[in-house]
Amino acid sequence: MAFDFSSVAREGLPAPSGRFTGHPPFLFVGGNNAEEMVPVDDLRAAADAVLAREGASMGMYNVHSGPQGHRGLRDFLSGKLKRYAGIDCPADDIILTSGSLQAMDLINEVLLAPGDTVLIEASNYGGVYPRLAKCGVHAVSVAVDADGMNMDALETELARLQAEAVRPKYIYTIPTVHNPTGTILPRARRERLLELARAHDVPVFEDECYADLVWTGERPPALMALDRDARVIHIGTFSKTIAPALRVGYIAAPWDMLSRILSVKADAGSGALEQMVLAEYCPRHFDAHLKRLNAHLEAKLDNLTAALDECFGTSVHYTRPPGGIFLWVRMPDGVDTDRLNQVALAEGIAINPGSEWSREEGRKQWIRICFAHPPQDVMRDGIARLAQVCHAEFGVPEVSGNRHL
Amino acid sequence: MAFDFSSVAREGLPAPSGRFTGHPPFLFVGGNNAEEMVPVDDLRAAADAVLAREGASMGMYNVHSGPQGHRGLRDFLSGKLKRYAGIDCPADDIILTSGSLQAMDLINEVLLAPGDTVLIEASNYGGVYPRLAKCGVHAVSVAVDADGMNMDALETELARLQAEAVRPKYIYTIPTVHNPTGTILPRARRERLLELARAHDVPVFEDECYADLVWTGERPPALMALDRDARVIHIGTFSKTIAPALRVGYIAAPWDMLSRILSVKADAGSGALEQMVLAEYCPRHFDAHLKRLNAHLEAKLDNLTAALDECFGTSVHYTRPPGGIFLWVRMPDGVDTDRLNQVALAEGIAINPGSEWSREEGRKQWIRICFAHPPQDVMRDGIARLAQVCHAEFGVPEVSGNRHL
Repeated sequence: MAFDFSSVAREGLPAPSGRFTGHPPFLFVGGNNAEEMVPVDDLRAAADAVLAREGASMGMYNVHSGPQGHRGLRDFLSGKLKRYAGIDCPADDIILTSGSLQAMDLINEVLLAPGDTVLIEASNYGGVYPRLAKCGVHAVSVAVDADGMNMDALETELARLQAEAVRPKYIYTIPTVHNPTGTILPRARRERLLELARAHDVPVFEDECYADLVWTGERPPALMALDRDARVIHIGTFSKTIAPALRVGYIAAPWDMLSRILSVKADAGSGALEQMVLAEYCPRHFDAHLKRLNAHLEAKLDNLTAALDECFGTSVHYTRPPGGIFLWVRMPDGVDTDRLNQVALAEGIAINPGSEWSREEGRKQWIRICFAHPPQDVMRDGIARLAQVCHAEFGVPEVSGNRHL
Repeated sequence: MAFDFSSVAREGLPAPSGRFTGHPPFLFVGGNNAEEMVPVDDLRAAADAVLAREGASMGMYNVHSGPQGHRGLRDFLSGKLKRYAGIDCPADDIILTSGSLQAMDLINEVLLAPGDTVLIEASNYGGVYPRLAKCGVHAVSVAVDADGMNMDALETELARLQAEAVRPKYIYTIPTVHNPTGTILPRARRERLLELARAHDVPVFEDECYADLVWTGERPPALMALDRDARVIHIGTFSKTIAPALRVGYIAAPWDMLSRILSVKADAGSGALEQMVLAEYCPRHFDAHLKRLNAHLEAKLDNLTAALDECFGTSVHYTRPPGGIFLWVRMPDGVDTDRLNQVALAEGIAINPGSEWSREEGRKQWIRICFAHPPQDVMRDGIARLAQVCHAEFGVPEVSGNRHL
């Protein structure tokens, strides 16, 4: 008789996973990227060159670079952070991680204990909620608007917590191409956020995972670039710019924090091969590739909004984001997006219902649509089918693609 | 003024890390491998071929294979586990991980809560102790001898715990090339371990990280191969056979357990590039490479023992292991290896003192010497210097290399 692992499993675990049976045909979820834009030939050349030169060093954990990760890639990052985000950060104050999720987990491991409080944007990356719940912390939601985190709301929450003698462990924010709303926090708000953080002596956790994908307007300096008292912990990733399956993220932070992160990073190093390949590829190709990628993503967004306009007409609302890979869409009145998600999934259409990505009131009327991965014709077809499913379930939109549904 | 992160760091963290300043010249620690044996040319060819064919799939998390990792590599592993370890495990019941340390962390996350009890070998992989301490569990030591874990000792401890109404969460063992002693648990003991586990209804956590590195005698079937009631969780890695910096490990386990592991593996997948390259490389080259590697490691062990015999004579004792990358050495009477470690490190010689790798009585007279990485001449030089340091501090060995020290 088979052993029963439920008899020894820890309490409070998530439900066991089901078997993976492939992705639905219309995949509008996940931080996947355009497969047609993965720079395969240049990555091949980089892999060949770097393996020929440095391949043997993989016989050693961390390929002679020490626990912070491949030195060449950290050198590139130091330059990239300066050019793209205005950040002065030496390679010595950067740690490479297994994706930015490991970066987030390490930061939480250093700072968070059960009962602690953190401040986060009221609409947020869905993966943040289970992580904070696992740490046993109180996540205080700060309202967002068309310019990102609302600073008056932040000031109010900080004052309220101060009155309760609670010092939050950090203010977490995705300031540049906010997830899921796509907004960019203006420079003035960034300055004010840092002032508030200073006044309340709270660290700032800046997540710039999507920040390189800006194609409209100016990208303001990162919070870390504007910080004058070394309180900002900054994370980023190559998942959105090169390929998500590579799993290379990074943390830039003052050594006072980085040295603590390093002491809990007990994984014998993140994967070196992908770091080596990126270290070879990026100095030559990153900037030009990003330019091409952003133009391509913008065209995919055009395709998505055209499909939405055609199939949903004026029944949906959205603000066109200045970059990124997702669109935050307010569905027609009367639509419950949790229910829509269920019926759409049964038809092979995967979307993120607002309840997974927000704690704002009215969130159940919103969905997040990721547009980077689906080929253009699949995207149009998927949105048309979503409109049909939505009409069948909720009676809206009434007209789709000039056809009465 | 710089923000003070000590004011927000969680309690109970390890001390902050120091800056990495390079490795000591005589590096006898760490699971590093022979750099001269990393199969660079075949890995280059594999990288080139697999990127040309599948590179674009990196635009998707987990490259279309789902959260368990690259399907091709899991197929290879299913076959390898059968051929090398006698295990029948379909690719569907394997998860690829970021090194076997992530495998260990995931298993602990599913099973362990503060106050729990586990059974472990009394001498052990040093990284196990801080991990179990972090989980807040009681680790009960089971004595080891020349044949690995002592089954009478295991029976005694299980009975004692039963009398206290404590059901351990698992029996953790490194049965094949035990770390640090290098022993192989004979088949009869494996059968008995499984009987005891059955009698006490406890899962078995089998760590076969080094098991492919056996060059002397027969490798017995893995515990998982002998298990008749699906209670064994088996982990392994490519770190010891191909390259540690790749960070590709795996878990083979009954789906009842694997589905729980999968539900806590919240990292958006382990690195796909290294999985793709191994999936391409291994079916063609793994067996032949392993044969060459094992012959090479055996020659390095010969070099190490010759150096020890020459420099320490009969003042040290060791049992020649049938495989692996480390030698467990009893230093001369009167030597405190914690102190030896300090003075040796000051001379650029890194060893593992027994106190970090054992809870046995007398452990402070032992050291672990890793012999896979140092070039042969560096190894001989390092052991000669270690003898000099040891002599200078403790007066032993009295004679080294036929020279009075």
